[in-house]
Amino acid sequence: MMFEQVNVQITGGLLRQWQARNSTATVPHTIEQLRAAGNVDNLRRLLVTDAPPYRGRYPFLDTDLYKTLEGVAYEIGAGTAQDGAREFFDEVVELLERVQAEDGYLNSYFQDPASAKKPWEDLSWGHELYNLGHLIQAAVAARRRMGDGRLLAVAVRFADLVVERFGPGKEEATCGHPEVEMALVELFRETGDRAYLVQAGLFVDRRGQARLKHTIFPPEYFQDHLPFRELPSVIGHAVRMAYLAAGATDIYLETGDRSLFEALDRLWDDMVATKLYLTGGLGSRHSDEAIGDRYELPSERAYAETCAAIATMQWAWRMFQATGGAKYLDVFERVLFNAYAVGLSADGRAFFYDNPLQRRPDHEQRSGAETGGEMLRRSWFGCPCCPPNIVRWMAQLGDYVAAEREGVLHITTYAGARIETGSIALVMETDYPWDGDVRIVVERAPDGPYAIRLRVPAWARSVTASVNGRPVEGAEDGWLTVERVWAAGDELRLGVPMPVRAHGSHPYLDATRGAVGVARGPLVYCVEQQDCPVSVDDLVVSPEQVAGATVERSRDELPGAVVLRMTAGAAAPPSAELYPELPAERPAPGGAVPVTFVPHFLWGNRRPEAMRVWVRNA
Amino acid sequence: MMFEQVNVQITGGLLRQWQARNSTATVPHTIEQLRAAGNVDNLRRLLVTDAPPYRGRYPFLDTDLYKTLEGVAYEIGAGTAQDGAREFFDEVVELLERVQAEDGYLNSYFQDPASAKKPWEDLSWGHELYNLGHLIQAAVAARRRMGDGRLLAVAVRFADLVVERFGPGKEEATCGHPEVEMALVELFRETGDRAYLVQAGLFVDRRGQARLKHTIFPPEYFQDHLPFRELPSVIGHAVRMAYLAAGATDIYLETGDRSLFEALDRLWDDMVATKLYLTGGLGSRHSDEAIGDRYELPSERAYAETCAAIATMQWAWRMFQATGGAKYLDVFERVLFNAYAVGLSADGRAFFYDNPLQRRPDHEQRSGAETGGEMLRRSWFGCPCCPPNIVRWMAQLGDYVAAEREGVLHITTYAGARIETGSIALVMETDYPWDGDVRIVVERAPDGPYAIRLRVPAWARSVTASVNGRPVEGAEDGWLTVERVWAAGDELRLGVPMPVRAHGSHPYLDATRGAVGVARGPLVYCVEQQDCPVSVDDLVVSPEQVAGATVERSRDELPGAVVLRMTAGAAAPPSAELYPELPAERPAPGGAVPVTFVPHFLWGNRRPEAMRVWVRNA
Repeated sequence: MMFEQVNVQITGGLLRQWQARNSTATVPHTIEQLRAAGNVDNLRRLLVTDAPPYRGRYPFLDTDLYKTLEGVAYEIGAGTAQDGAREFFDEVVELLERVQAEDGYLNSYFQDPASAKKPWEDLSWGHELYNLGHLIQAAVAARRRMGDGRLLAVAVRFADLVVERFGPGKEEATCGHPEVEMALVELFRETGDRAYLVQAGLFVDRRGQARLKHTIFPPEYFQDHLPFRELPSVIGHAVRMAYLAAGATDIYLETGDRSLFEALDRLWDDMVATKLYLTGGLGSRHSDEAIGDRYELPSERAYAETCAAIATMQWAWRMFQATGGAKYLDVFERVLFNAYAVGLSADGRAFFYDNPLQRRPDHEQRSGAETGGEMLRRSWFGCPCCPPNIVRWMAQLGDYVAAEREGVLHITTYAGARIETGSIALVMETDYPWDGDVRIVVERAPDGPYAIRLRVPAWARSVTASVNGRPVEGAEDGWLTVERVWAAGDELRLGVPMPVRAHGSHPYLDATRGAVGVARGPLVYCVEQQDCPVSVDDLVVSPEQVAGATVERSRDELPGAVVLRMTAGAAAPPSAELYPELPAERPAPGGAVPVTFVPHFLWGNRRPEAMRVWVRNA
Repeated sequence: MMFEQVNVQITGGLLRQWQARNSTATVPHTIEQLRAAGNVDNLRRLLVTDAPPYRGRYPFLDTDLYKTLEGVAYEIGAGTAQDGAREFFDEVVELLERVQAEDGYLNSYFQDPASAKKPWEDLSWGHELYNLGHLIQAAVAARRRMGDGRLLAVAVRFADLVVERFGPGKEEATCGHPEVEMALVELFRETGDRAYLVQAGLFVDRRGQARLKHTIFPPEYFQDHLPFRELPSVIGHAVRMAYLAAGATDIYLETGDRSLFEALDRLWDDMVATKLYLTGGLGSRHSDEAIGDRYELPSERAYAETCAAIATMQWAWRMFQATGGAKYLDVFERVLFNAYAVGLSADGRAFFYDNPLQRRPDHEQRSGAETGGEMLRRSWFGCPCCPPNIVRWMAQLGDYVAAEREGVLHITTYAGARIETGSIALVMETDYPWDGDVRIVVERAPDGPYAIRLRVPAWARSVTASVNGRPVEGAEDGWLTVERVWAAGDELRLGVPMPVRAHGSHPYLDATRGAVGVARGPLVYCVEQQDCPVSVDDLVVSPEQVAGATVERSRDELPGAVVLRMTAGAAAPPSAELYPELPAERPAPGGAVPVTFVPHFLWGNRRPEAMRVWVRNA
């Protein structure tokens, strides 16, 4: 029933550019920042006497090492790691081996004898199991991709300690920050030890008793106010919520627990229908980094944390694995090319923590120290969870291009790639997402009939396809299935139409009422002030103008990107009154102006100016 | 040039009901809560050995005593204080006299030898001068209204210490939370000692060097990123901003410093044009309790703290004093009857801390512990700044009904009241704000000609007036001036038309685009789910339907309130898609439904259900 992972090497196009940038820029930058911020020293100091104090304000700074190790493991495995990555990997792994306590415990904050807290004393905020989760994920990646089992040995020792302390019949506790659930299921898959799977299930099922305590955050923040299966909607801290749901989906994948799936299915559909930004971003509140109420989706204050984007993709992928449903991949792709991609600068060395859909012309206000509220990408954060999360995710993108189940290969994302399973080997060429033409050539064919399923994105509505020039039809439920006896050299072509689309929004969504969101293919577009001759707040765009946009390759400031040029209306600047009596005088429509829309994920790479994803419709 | 305070006794109508509720319910409730929460004990413990620890999480809990003392002083002075209020006043004043340090310092948190911080060590977060400000305001009220100078002696000792330490040429510091500026100017007015006025000026002028430090809050939070005169817009923590501006206006009133007024004038107009809610609420972010960017005014997440409403009225009143401008009183009144009044329950014993303009049908999320994010009024808060602020403001409402300058009496708010100056005595009868008819009868007439100026609210556009039945005309700039030789028994009548109004919003204000706000007179209305046969989110209201509303006195659940009954459209529930492609299928308009709008300040006094100030227009 399970999908099997497919060996994919990304070879061309945007995703290849992203992976190359990861190797050459983001990984080295991240290693440099981790060293400078003290994350490595926090481990090293435990080995010496008279050590300087723990650096950083949070007890979870080891996870930034783990996430980076995970990313580096993928790159070493793929042979793309640059100078310094291997040394970093070895150095940190050796430190971890030395620092780990006799009983398996490992955490540079809590192991400090000078720490204000003792191990396991504050599960609500200590993040100790969250730490373990990232350790396991790095360890499994190192074992699988590098054949290096050192970190796995460390992870297993810590995981065994956790099972011993929190296992069936033991201390009825769970962690304030979900993440370990996904990791424990993966550790079960890697080791075959079912105790880890059971433990993951316990950690999900123990939530909902309001046992997690914090002076500031309410139980909803921790998804601890209701049992998981009874949650009416995704709620609370966005990253916690999506990691928890992704972990619960992993448990369902291994146990087949239907009541768990029913909750996941309901929560997913509700999230997509009421709580996701057009970009796929999750979380509309700076306060508590929380998901808002249904339809509470303000553009300028979208929190949409980059880590929440990654967590949403993790959940989406697992829901696809659980069902084969293409709708989950639509969200995966929406997040990948928008809410996730926007978190990183074009040069790969600066990050958004939160990802707003609007920057107002007079934007002047920061709010909170960590949020990047000034709407500029920053080189690092006091809470640096997002940058290394971007690193590990970028490095593993190949894992999400294809999957095989019961002898059917599913192409889940289009990218220049070499795809290989036990049955078949393919080469895929495409300039997706800039262009919808995909060419797949069979390198090694299976014996006998074999089906390839091509994803039909929901936004495409229909596709054209051919095998060796002969048309293929019959797309259904988001998939076009081509089953035949393949031969090496066979050519499968897919044409995904990419008209420019104008999106409106649900009438309950107040924040974007009367506004248009522009998209093409999987990409959401935006207008930045430098591309608009009038204030972006005075720009008025009709669906007809959007449909008539010209699609062009940018040659200047955002090289290679497809930009959209159109003629739009310019409202005369309005009167100053904030709440005029109705019917108000409508400002006379001004002249038509030429305007360029750019991919949202590329905004803010030039000088910081006003930006809008949602533009007035009237 | 200055307006002089006028002796006003509120005798009837809504404001009288409010003041009576304050005496009989809110003051006793507040005293009870202050005792239970430890605010009184925090002082008493300093007089004993082996005292229990300071109670509460904040170093500014003395201010809640001071604000209550201030309110009680007004009530004792007016003869309306109930049992227990006088005892509370005496008890706390005696404690303060005993606790005050030799050198004049007074603060129950910092005077504790066990406190983690020493006096003056943390001006950014210590709130010591903010504490002093509220002490002074209570002391001045007690001296003026009760003739009791004990607290003033305490306040002067502390203020003198502050001048000695932070005066001209001394330590270049200021407080993280403005408030003391207003108070020091008042202390100058009370004592004639110009050092306090100079000190207030220094505290304003010292801001803008980013000297105030906090691990979480950026300098903007403290209005410390730019000198006050250079602020482009009101910014940062809303209460801090408005207290600071009110204090700066007081300084202008006494010094005539034009550059200060130019900044105030610019900041005020910008705030009203871009940053105030329809209700007059200030502050659109839960995060940092901050004012947002221009036009960032989301309804469901309006923070609009009750204390910020009081601060905005304080600033508005001082701008009126500085200019005689009626436009400031329009805002004063808008805040008074909406953003301020909504902070208190109908029974006077429960409070909103933040005051949203919308409660979504599925509202389920709390966020932060103090914010009342569950959208229910609560009996008290861990940070209880708002309840005693409501108390002191309610008790002094009479001070804002009229003011005299250069022999011209300005009627600034309409209420049942007896008004007396050295020149004239009047009785005003009205059921304002429920009704726009005002009758003023002269009790004691001045010798010779004398002018009475009646405020013409901006929303009224025009008024009718007569003296002894003979029409009077000539309203100008928000005032109708009636100058004549008055005789006892003369009757001045004013008719302020109160049609039901439909307000739209500025096209840059995304959150309320395509929606209608209903108002009548100074009151903003809202629809609560219990008064609407379809979901409030499916309600569609046109300006014509608003204009045709029936105005009725409620006899059932909100007795005495004027409610608006109208026929509105009911959209068919929309399709589930969150971002449909445009042009989207419009749901067929459903039938017409009867709906009742109630004053926004009364919402949430029945069972908690969905609420909207802004209702869809299409």
